[in-house]
Amino acid sequence: MSTNAERLWSRLTTLATKTEPDRPWTRRSFTPTFLDGRQWLAEQFEQAGLTVSIDTGGNLIGRLAGRNPSLPPILLGSHSDSVPSGGRFDGILGVIAALEVAQSLQECGEQLEHNLEVIDFLAEEPSEFGLSCIGSRALAGKLDDTMLAATRADGTTLGEALRGVGGDPDQLDAARRGPNSIAGFLELHIEQGKTLETRQLDIGVVTGIAAIRRTRVAVTGRADHAGQTPMRDRADALVGAARLIDGAYRAALAASTPDMPLVATIGRVERIRPNAANAVPAYVELLLECRSADEAAVATFCDDLVTRLAPEFEQLGLTIDTEVVSHVPATPCANTVQQVIAETAQALGKSFCSLPSGAGHDGMFVSHLGPFGMIFVPCLDGRSHTPEEWLEPEQAAIGVEVMYETVKRLDRVL
Amino acid sequence: MSTNAERLWSRLTTLATKTEPDRPWTRRSFTPTFLDGRQWLAEQFEQAGLTVSIDTGGNLIGRLAGRNPSLPPILLGSHSDSVPSGGRFDGILGVIAALEVAQSLQECGEQLEHNLEVIDFLAEEPSEFGLSCIGSRALAGKLDDTMLAATRADGTTLGEALRGVGGDPDQLDAARRGPNSIAGFLELHIEQGKTLETRQLDIGVVTGIAAIRRTRVAVTGRADHAGQTPMRDRADALVGAARLIDGAYRAALAASTPDMPLVATIGRVERIRPNAANAVPAYVELLLECRSADEAAVATFCDDLVTRLAPEFEQLGLTIDTEVVSHVPATPCANTVQQVIAETAQALGKSFCSLPSGAGHDGMFVSHLGPFGMIFVPCLDGRSHTPEEWLEPEQAAIGVEVMYETVKRLDRVL
Repeated sequence: MSTNAERLWSRLTTLATKTEPDRPWTRRSFTPTFLDGRQWLAEQFEQAGLTVSIDTGGNLIGRLAGRNPSLPPILLGSHSDSVPSGGRFDGILGVIAALEVAQSLQECGEQLEHNLEVIDFLAEEPSEFGLSCIGSRALAGKLDDTMLAATRADGTTLGEALRGVGGDPDQLDAARRGPNSIAGFLELHIEQGKTLETRQLDIGVVTGIAAIRRTRVAVTGRADHAGQTPMRDRADALVGAARLIDGAYRAALAASTPDMPLVATIGRVERIRPNAANAVPAYVELLLECRSADEAAVATFCDDLVTRLAPEFEQLGLTIDTEVVSHVPATPCANTVQQVIAETAQALGKSFCSLPSGAGHDGMFVSHLGPFGMIFVPCLDGRSHTPEEWLEPEQAAIGVEVMYETVKRLDRVL
Repeated sequence: MSTNAERLWSRLTTLATKTEPDRPWTRRSFTPTFLDGRQWLAEQFEQAGLTVSIDTGGNLIGRLAGRNPSLPPILLGSHSDSVPSGGRFDGILGVIAALEVAQSLQECGEQLEHNLEVIDFLAEEPSEFGLSCIGSRALAGKLDDTMLAATRADGTTLGEALRGVGGDPDQLDAARRGPNSIAGFLELHIEQGKTLETRQLDIGVVTGIAAIRRTRVAVTGRADHAGQTPMRDRADALVGAARLIDGAYRAALAASTPDMPLVATIGRVERIRPNAANAVPAYVELLLECRSADEAAVATFCDDLVTRLAPEFEQLGLTIDTEVVSHVPATPCANTVQQVIAETAQALGKSFCSLPSGAGHDGMFVSHLGPFGMIFVPCLDGRSHTPEEWLEPEQAAIGVEVMYETVKRLDRVL
């Protein structure tokens, strides 16, 4: 092995313990706990021989010079923030693996042609400003003034918070990189699903990040006295919402195939009125999220469902309104990068398969700057964003070894 | 006509306008608006020749002496409080009709054998202390110390608020009446349903108040990443809740007959966790309410539903827990009273039918003291507890005329 599995694991467990003590494992972006983690990371970058800086978008960057400084850099990295009560590996695995690759290259006397940048992107997870992927948006020039003006509960704007982590909202152009400004970007991440575990595979070659579409669905009926209104005379908005929730579940189950997974989730009920035990519900508002690499399937899922349910809604005396809240198009991974990862895994005797990512990642934005790829490693029971999230030290070690060899090959082909 | 339809309507519209100005029609118990309405009512009682007092349970009472003061009194009345943004007639129709009966008896030179009491019961609607039927509970000796210690949002206890409306929480025994302490209790109320309107009938002879059972249902699944967890690997608590909501609707629709209506409502969703757009719901808690005069059907409705859904829940990886929050048994109306109302309507040439009350009323408590009956009149589109609540002046006039003649007959038979 060219990389140091023990050092990798030791760093992972050390950074993981930088958590809010009463709510493991929590390291929310912009908090003192987050800055504590970053301080430690910066020290590790320096000790590994990297040149450390924070760009105006709040990204922590460690640079390693290549033989040919005129070439665009290869970027490796992920994020050190977490969701509340999240897991120990989501995000930091990719940062610490990138650091391990950079350090091992030096220890093995391997100098790349390209400059290498190890990046801890700022606030990949949904932040308290209602925005995710803040650092990678800045890199892609997609962090705009409206976003910077967003406030969290205490009234602080994102712009102010950005200064607090070493960024500069007035100089965002300095962080921005143009199209073709990078040779490539590679991220190692836990799968957050069960495909690799179930098929007992070492490595997932990510084909792309699924399109994510969120639609607000409002069901309107009529409030009536729950005691005195016969069932036939009701227009119960919650009954309509229930058919929509179950319908979305069944439709996604039917539409999903192993080759092209599709998921639909109603994870959030935004409003129920009047929400009283003795009143027939008049109004229910919920968020329907659909994800798949099949862009067309995602675009039509909610409309198709509503059309199919229309006769039932009419019979129930209900009206239904939909509004697309957000649509992030699918982000394909570069074929070259996928191919090199697969060849490397094969050369190292590691088992692998190709699979899409249902979760969003910084690559959605970094992909605008150059070829983008991701390597997945299995995680226990497919769980993530929960304290039970786990991967075995050997699984992490295989991931970083494949990443190391992939980077060396990419340096030659990109 | 022995009663004065114009005076009845004029009083109804006058009291209705005593509302919170920006939120018609709202006269919440214990508020200045409520006390304003009560002050006006007390003046009307006095002008109609009644002896006015407030008992220690906060009930406003107007007394008219009968020929035989040793007989237990006949009680007539309802309540002057409303739900927030309620209607103009729910409650006050029964109070002002009772007043009209007492005044008309005097104007027609008809003195009853029994004393007559016109009562405005305190806080029949769910109050800000989480309790309804406060005045009638006091009458039945069922207002206990735990209830008196209940607080509203500003920290005031019910006991303190009771003093504010002229009651006395330390002397509740003075308001209490024993079994057989009254000759009977009669209440006029809008139907709050569409049976009379649909069948174009003048009068509903109420057979009893339905049993009301509330069950808290908790569905537990597992929180997972909504993007990366395939549909087959989910344990989505909201999908289980949706099947329960729709199942309750369909089961109640199937179980209900014109002769024995049954309603089931999930009106309140108490908790959804984590309630995030990108997370599979792990936990949903809701309140299921079932009402019917068929006590056994109400008692088994939720358990039967849960048993029927058990295989689906197991397949979905969900567990379900239920807890009975409250069960108010059915309150039958006295046969004698039902019979006298029907005979009176027939004698007056008014069309009528027998029907149960799905809504709760003060009779649930006053029935412990002696024979209890209710007269329903139609209301527009069956709507109540909403600003659109409406009844025509003629419909109110027919109701009070039937009530007047019923009271004279009851005076002879009770």
